[in-house]
Amino acid sequence: MCSLPVPREPLRRVAVTGGTHGNEMCGVHLVRHWLQAPGELQRPSFSAMPVLANPAATAACRRYMDRDLNRTFTLTFLNSTATPDDPYEVTRARELNELLGPKGTDQAFDFILDLHNTTANTGVCLVSEGSHNTLNLHLCHYLQLQNPGLPCRLLQYDPPGMETYSLESVSKNGIGLEMGPQPQGVLRADLFSRMRTLVASILDFIELYNQGMAFPAFEIDIYRNLGKVDFPRTSDGDLAGTVHPQLQDHDFEPLKPGEPIFKLFSGEDVLYEGNSTVYPVFINEAAYYEKHVAFLKSERIRVSVPALPELTSSSTLAP
Amino acid sequence: MCSLPVPREPLRRVAVTGGTHGNEMCGVHLVRHWLQAPGELQRPSFSAMPVLANPAATAACRRYMDRDLNRTFTLTFLNSTATPDDPYEVTRARELNELLGPKGTDQAFDFILDLHNTTANTGVCLVSEGSHNTLNLHLCHYLQLQNPGLPCRLLQYDPPGMETYSLESVSKNGIGLEMGPQPQGVLRADLFSRMRTLVASILDFIELYNQGMAFPAFEIDIYRNLGKVDFPRTSDGDLAGTVHPQLQDHDFEPLKPGEPIFKLFSGEDVLYEGNSTVYPVFINEAAYYEKHVAFLKSERIRVSVPALPELTSSSTLAP
Repeated sequence: MCSLPVPREPLRRVAVTGGTHGNEMCGVHLVRHWLQAPGELQRPSFSAMPVLANPAATAACRRYMDRDLNRTFTLTFLNSTATPDDPYEVTRARELNELLGPKGTDQAFDFILDLHNTTANTGVCLVSEGSHNTLNLHLCHYLQLQNPGLPCRLLQYDPPGMETYSLESVSKNGIGLEMGPQPQGVLRADLFSRMRTLVASILDFIELYNQGMAFPAFEIDIYRNLGKVDFPRTSDGDLAGTVHPQLQDHDFEPLKPGEPIFKLFSGEDVLYEGNSTVYPVFINEAAYYEKHVAFLKSERIRVSVPALPELTSSSTLAP
Repeated sequence: MCSLPVPREPLRRVAVTGGTHGNEMCGVHLVRHWLQAPGELQRPSFSAMPVLANPAATAACRRYMDRDLNRTFTLTFLNSTATPDDPYEVTRARELNELLGPKGTDQAFDFILDLHNTTANTGVCLVSEGSHNTLNLHLCHYLQLQNPGLPCRLLQYDPPGMETYSLESVSKNGIGLEMGPQPQGVLRADLFSRMRTLVASILDFIELYNQGMAFPAFEIDIYRNLGKVDFPRTSDGDLAGTVHPQLQDHDFEPLKPGEPIFKLFSGEDVLYEGNSTVYPVFINEAAYYEKHVAFLKSERIRVSVPALPELTSSSTLAP
């Protein structure tokens, strides 16, 4: 397998961002809490900075005000000349790029952990942009070992175009943490507590990495996005049906050709017509209706991840 | 017990309204479907009219544009002079009052069935405004008999002030049908199908009533709203915690004094300090955060419902 180069420097400048989507409440309330009580984000070699990414959308309890912030961190948006008519999220993306970037430069933060919720039954899902980023794969493996009862999957999601656009793409390394199911605008104590524990584990992993720990090679199943599937629609573009009960809530489970994916309002079933088994993810996520996404298809692939050797002593922050 | 007078006329003019809250998707999509294919709403003695109550909020997939439509049907709003600066929902309430009312007059519709979803785990919940409205109690009993496996509860909700304000308050009789849990902006096939079946049963009940069927007396447990409980908050008004995992998803189950109701972000539990057992409803409903409602307390009461004698032959629509 190919794998991107692993950073060979400690990760000193780390941010934990929430409220990138203003109605995904675990990240919103964790970040608000940490802004008052940042102790949980401190480790011997670094202190992660909490950032409320989209304050206006958070105040309005909406995903975004003018456009999806988490699709706005392209160099085109970040480097264009500001005008008074810019959408709120374009202005905010530039501010975050100043704070955490600039994207693609040596001055950028070392790591952004961006916190999300979904209405889909994903459980814990790490979303990793770089193809086979070895650091993220080691991080996922570490979380699996630390939380043996908790399914923790990694979805490799490369943007359809050539350019990355997510908030974490601003930093040198980064990952999105998705947890579901949780309705928009609702804060469930079970998910809040689980996300808090996972963030602590992720900071522990970074600390171990910074302290020079070597991580051995391993094999892992990951899920690679293959593309979106839209809802069935009428000629007017309205929904003609919705996700089939046999598919609803079955994120990351195999979907075989011939199995039902939609139930039409007329009562008929729509069957999956692909040639091979896929693994649907983000099934019936509320925010994706407007993006014409009923679910993402993914393939499950086995990946051999090389060891992460210890940092050389000159670069570690060991006492 | 006291009970309001039962209408002694057939219910000829019936409306089924959805999208009163634009992000409660079962009603939105049922009404859109029925506007194209109204056959399901026809019975021998009447044809129910489907109405998309808040088209602007539905198009935006938001609960409302300017204010909660389902709190706007007071005579104060309905009878005030229109101005160009009126909130969208005030204008829309007046339009609906013209279509289905006027409220409090003989010209008003005989029955409005208003369809809602909630993020709370309420199952099927009928919301009835008039205290002990005998027709609604018979309707609830009929649904329970028709759907033996499906818990179907009636919540008696009288507005805190003197005046009713819901959409169904415009008609001579009416009821709200709530189903949960379903996230805002999501259409689940299981809830969609169940709501469709229940609407059919409700129309069947009205048809039997119109045809002159007598309904015998019975006893039933109902839930009566006792008031709201807010989330724990900081001095700034921010959340200081959320619904306790032991309470989350336990709508209509007994809550005893001393049992936990909130989990603070500090880790502490907040216990219920009331004097008697209550039955929480609408636990962690997304739309109620802004109303400062974490859940409603209700009491469960046993009600003796008198028989509904057959309509006199002069008023029935029997063939």
